[in-house]
Amino acid sequence: METRLSVVKSQYEKIIVSIGGNAIVRRNDRGTIEEQFENLKHACGYIGRMVKGGKSIIITHGNGPIVGNIVLRNEMVKNLIPPEPLYICDADSEGGIGFMIQQTLYNQLHKLHNIKDVVTIVTQVVVDRDDPAFKDPSKPVGPYYTEEEAKKLADAKGWVMKEDSHRGFRRVVPSPAPKKIIEAAVVKTLAEMGVIVIAAGGGGVPVIEEEDGTLKGVDAVIDKDLATALLAKEVKADRFINLTQVDRVYVNFGKPGQRGITEMNVKEARGFLEAGEFAPGSMGPKVQAAIDFLEAGGREVIITEPELIESALEGKAGTRIVK
Amino acid sequence: METRLSVVKSQYEKIIVSIGGNAIVRRNDRGTIEEQFENLKHACGYIGRMVKGGKSIIITHGNGPIVGNIVLRNEMVKNLIPPEPLYICDADSEGGIGFMIQQTLYNQLHKLHNIKDVVTIVTQVVVDRDDPAFKDPSKPVGPYYTEEEAKKLADAKGWVMKEDSHRGFRRVVPSPAPKKIIEAAVVKTLAEMGVIVIAAGGGGVPVIEEEDGTLKGVDAVIDKDLATALLAKEVKADRFINLTQVDRVYVNFGKPGQRGITEMNVKEARGFLEAGEFAPGSMGPKVQAAIDFLEAGGREVIITEPELIESALEGKAGTRIVK
Repeated sequence: METRLSVVKSQYEKIIVSIGGNAIVRRNDRGTIEEQFENLKHACGYIGRMVKGGKSIIITHGNGPIVGNIVLRNEMVKNLIPPEPLYICDADSEGGIGFMIQQTLYNQLHKLHNIKDVVTIVTQVVVDRDDPAFKDPSKPVGPYYTEEEAKKLADAKGWVMKEDSHRGFRRVVPSPAPKKIIEAAVVKTLAEMGVIVIAAGGGGVPVIEEEDGTLKGVDAVIDKDLATALLAKEVKADRFINLTQVDRVYVNFGKPGQRGITEMNVKEARGFLEAGEFAPGSMGPKVQAAIDFLEAGGREVIITEPELIESALEGKAGTRIVK
Repeated sequence: METRLSVVKSQYEKIIVSIGGNAIVRRNDRGTIEEQFENLKHACGYIGRMVKGGKSIIITHGNGPIVGNIVLRNEMVKNLIPPEPLYICDADSEGGIGFMIQQTLYNQLHKLHNIKDVVTIVTQVVVDRDDPAFKDPSKPVGPYYTEEEAKKLADAKGWVMKEDSHRGFRRVVPSPAPKKIIEAAVVKTLAEMGVIVIAAGGGGVPVIEEEDGTLKGVDAVIDKDLATALLAKEVKADRFINLTQVDRVYVNFGKPGQRGITEMNVKEARGFLEAGEFAPGSMGPKVQAAIDFLEAGGREVIITEPELIESALEGKAGTRIVK
């Protein structure tokens, strides 16, 4: 057995990188595994080139389109095979997507002659059982439907369906706020030893803490940006790079007067957020996550697309958010 | 964030415990998640009581009935949702089952006032691309079918179907020999720090190493007993406790003259194995895995059922295999 562990001195930078679900399954993809690997090869190529100079790297990722398909498969054959609850579908997706990222990044690093351990830690994220989100489902899961299909599904399955980004209708599930990450100590320790850790995939498996301190899965999806910000705080990350499908954050997005933001501070970010500039379930939680992270002591947040990581780190692309 | 990490002195014992798939989904279960949690509560209760005195614990598990259902769901709706290849189903099951064990064991330890970190590491296991198993599928996956159903599935899907344990017909897939465990160094390090690690679930995700050293998933299922023996060797475990649904190993199993074995050495074990005493895909690989582990320097193997762990460790139950 090769041992590739090495201790990273604590003065080195700890970076948390989040890969959006839409960077794994792209808008016009069919959703095959081949496409997902191809998309991840791009993202991991850019991340791989960033992994040098003794940085500690932690990766989180979205699971939107993928967990939606797992849920759908479960629902469609539920009369033949007992269906898994949503939180088990979340855990399944942490395994499957984690594996794809861990292998793809390992391969990309290998090609760069930079052999490193890359592991996926299945992550449980505690939410408050009294979170108001349980009474107001808001997080889109799975594919887009026409209005007619959406109505049929709502009637047949009791799903809550909402229109999303003018691209159709989607099922929405509760999205409670993340409160604590059960495996954070292990993630932090491994990252500080030089292991690249994939964690809190899809926002992690939502669990509640019972009165006796034991844990129990609940049917919900935790926003992966907010879960990433919490993990970033708990592992004391310096920077948080949030990879999505736009080059930077915009105000008046898709409207006349659209303007890209190169840099903003927490106060400006909160102002735009409160003015409704950023779509809920899309750029909104990314900016909120940036604020959470910076207010908890984080140094810098970058929001950009995978292709632009390196330019963004040099201040030539993306949106930089600081305290 | 609570930090529960503590360094375990290297003189403490390192134990690898394997939970059989049939201890997660029992013979007459419907296969619901509630049943799986209930079964795991039993197994993890017994494992939890064993976790004391500074032992390093690594857990592996089977995925037989569960990955079979994941594969089935994928196959049944493949015209609507692009199906995942078998190796992604394996990775999904590492996430889902790993989560269930990690949470259940955490909860059981919590009730015993023994707070410990318990994590699941998604594990890739290298197999040889020229392994003869790829030409001779042998590993049962998924549910049992009648002879008639089996014939229909073989015709419709090209599956290879074989009769199994006189309980019906099952699909069989290639089962190549495990050669190397990519994440073994991380598993070993964590275990030595006192973290309970769940790894190589379902035998791990089978991957081949390309000529340039990069990894690629392949459609196969690695026998979890052989993968566990390999992991046990790579992490230098002292003992290997293999939990299954019988109290100990038998010769003449289910025949006149059936006799339980309380202790045997490698030579005796090999003799029984070569005489065809142990069913392939069942007790056979467990005894082979014991031989592999002991010949590589392991101290002791115990084969028993979860309820009997403690008695077996005292020499009062189970089968003990030594060099």
